[in-house]
Parts: sequence; structure tokens; C-alpha cells
Amino acid sequence: MSETLDVIKNRRSCRNFKQQTLPEELVDQVIEAGTWAPTGRGAQSPVIVYVTNSYVKRKLREMNAKILGKEDFDPFFGAPVILIVLADKNVPTYVYDGSLVMGNMMLAAEDLGLASCWIHRAKEEFDSEEGKILLKAIGIDNMNLEGIGHLALGYANVPAPEPAERKKDYVYYSED
Amino acid sequence: MSETLDVIKNRRSCRNFKQQTLPEELVDQVIEAGTWAPTGRGAQSPVIVYVTNSYVKRKLREMNAKILGKEDFDPFFGAPVILIVLADKNVPTYVYDGSLVMGNMMLAAEDLGLASCWIHRAKEEFDSEEGKILLKAIGIDNMNLEGIGHLALGYANVPAPEPAERKKDYVYYSED
Repeated sequence: MSETLDVIKNRRSCRNFKQQTLPEELVDQVIEAGTWAPTGRGAQSPVIVYVTNSYVKRKLREMNAKILGKEDFDPFFGAPVILIVLADKNVPTYVYDGSLVMGNMMLAAEDLGLASCWIHRAKEEFDSEEGKILLKAIGIDNMNLEGIGHLALGYANVPAPEPAERKKDYVYYSED
Repeated sequence: MSETLDVIKNRRSCRNFKQQTLPEELVDQVIEAGTWAPTGRGAQSPVIVYVTNSYVKRKLREMNAKILGKEDFDPFFGAPVILIVLADKNVPTYVYDGSLVMGNMMLAAEDLGLASCWIHRAKEEFDSEEGKILLKAIGIDNMNLEGIGHLALGYANVPAPEPAERKKDYVYYSED
């Protein structure tokens, strides 16, 4: 099996991260992988926000936990780095585009020995006034961006779980 | 650079395919890569449809070209295989889930020496009565599936183009 197929098959979502900070050159490679995702008509509708700032991480945790309906809960599972993907909703393919950025980053992370997990509720977060103020504080002026997802990124604190079985009716065939 | 990052960086969308049929074991690996995409709460909301059937391919071409507003045009660029991804819209994360399946398949294809292109308008296609009849004919009974995308898959008939430059404001930083 080739290395890439191996990475695709072995990637698991991680829900328990070490507090250890990450080498910047690894995170840079993860982010770069995200920027190479294909986008509808090459419009590059997404942006990636690299977050290690303690205040911003705390705000994200609070907003996300509130949407989830759980207080005193860290929806990012202690990850030292949060990568937020947002995409410009004026571009018809923006949700698909942003998702592919997330996908590339998850695979690059696995390939580099990092663990990750897609954390949802980014849409609700950045649709809110509080979320928009946070974006402005980060230096993002485009108010047409919709939250696509957060990637919690770090070193895994626990071994990767066994994968769940793939469902029986995943694939259909229409052959000659 | 590791092989996976290399695959991520070198993948280009292909818009000119050879008529040559594909070894089934390669397509199987592409499809399997799709099934390993993470999905929200592990719900595995997507399905993948493998299409080589001439009639179904012709119908897809017609429906897709019509939505695009171009007649006598092959929106799949002569690809011998079309992989359709649909996902169950009762699952809140279905669009993100289905997009990750598409992403995994594009990278697996590149890794295996195949070329691919995400062809959009699957939503409009399978929202239509004609599209739903086609799904039923293929053996798909779940009428809650929404079209996410088609992957045109084949051997490239032309060299991969140079990638467009990444936009300047792709990444923002919020650091301590």
C-alpha cells in the first residue's frame, strides 16, 4: 500500500491532546497543505486562521461549548493549536471548498505525526456578533466569511482508537 | 517532503481524459479511500456511486450540461469513470462529510497515477425528479440523499497544468 493510502486509512480523529506546543515548521506544512486544496473555479474561497493565542482559544472554547449546550467543557480537547477554516459565502462552492481545506490539513497532520479532529459549530460561532468581533480582532475584514470548521491539532495523548467498521451500503455500482 | 504532502501539492484538476478504461483494482482503492473519510459523529452519511454504465453516464452528462446551460458539451471531459458522492441530508454534517469523501478520492487518485476533477451541480441533478429516478434505477432507495459532487476519473490526456498562485491573504495568525 502506498504511503498516501496508508495515511488516509490510518487517520483517526483524536479527542485527547498533549499540552505540548507544536514545532512551527510542522504546523506550517499542515497549513500549506490546506491552501493546496482544489476550489470551485479556482476561486480560493477559504481562509485559514492559525490560533495559539490564549485569549482567542478561550473565547472559541466558550462560544463552542455554549452552542453545544455544555458548560465547563473544552470542545477542542486540550489541543495547543486550533486552525479555523472559513470561506466566502459569495462563492457558490464555498462549503465544499472549505471542507477540502480541512481534509487536506487532517491528512497532512497524520502524515507529519500529528493528531487532529474536525470540531464543528464554526458556522454558528462566526454567524454570531461575538464571532464577527473576534474575526475583526484577528484582522479579518471580510464579513462574508462563514465558519466551515475548526481543526484541533496537537500530539495525541492516547493511542488512536480502532476504526469503526464501514457501513455495508457505502458503495453502489452502475456498470456496463 | 513526504509522499503525502507531495501528492497534496501535485494534484491538479484534469479536464481532458483518455478514453482508456481503468484497472478495477485502482478504482477500488480510490473508492476505499473515500470510505475512510471522517464523518460527523461517525455517522457515515455519504454514499459513493461507481458509474461506468454508458446509459447512466450519458444521462449524467445531459443533466449536468443542461444545468450548466451548455448543450453538446461533456462536463465530465471524457472520463471513463464517474464517481458520484451523495450524502444523507438528515445528518447535520452531511455536506462536510461528503466533501471529505471527494477529497480523499482525489488524493488517492493522484497517488495511484490517475487524474480527476470534481464536477459540481450534483445537488441540482439529484434534487430533480429525473435524478431521483436515476438513483432508483441504480438501486438506491434512500430519497434523503443530496448530491455532493461527481469525481471524473481517468488517465490524463494532457500534462497537468502549472498550479495557480495561492492568494495572498489565505492565512491569518492569532498568536500569543
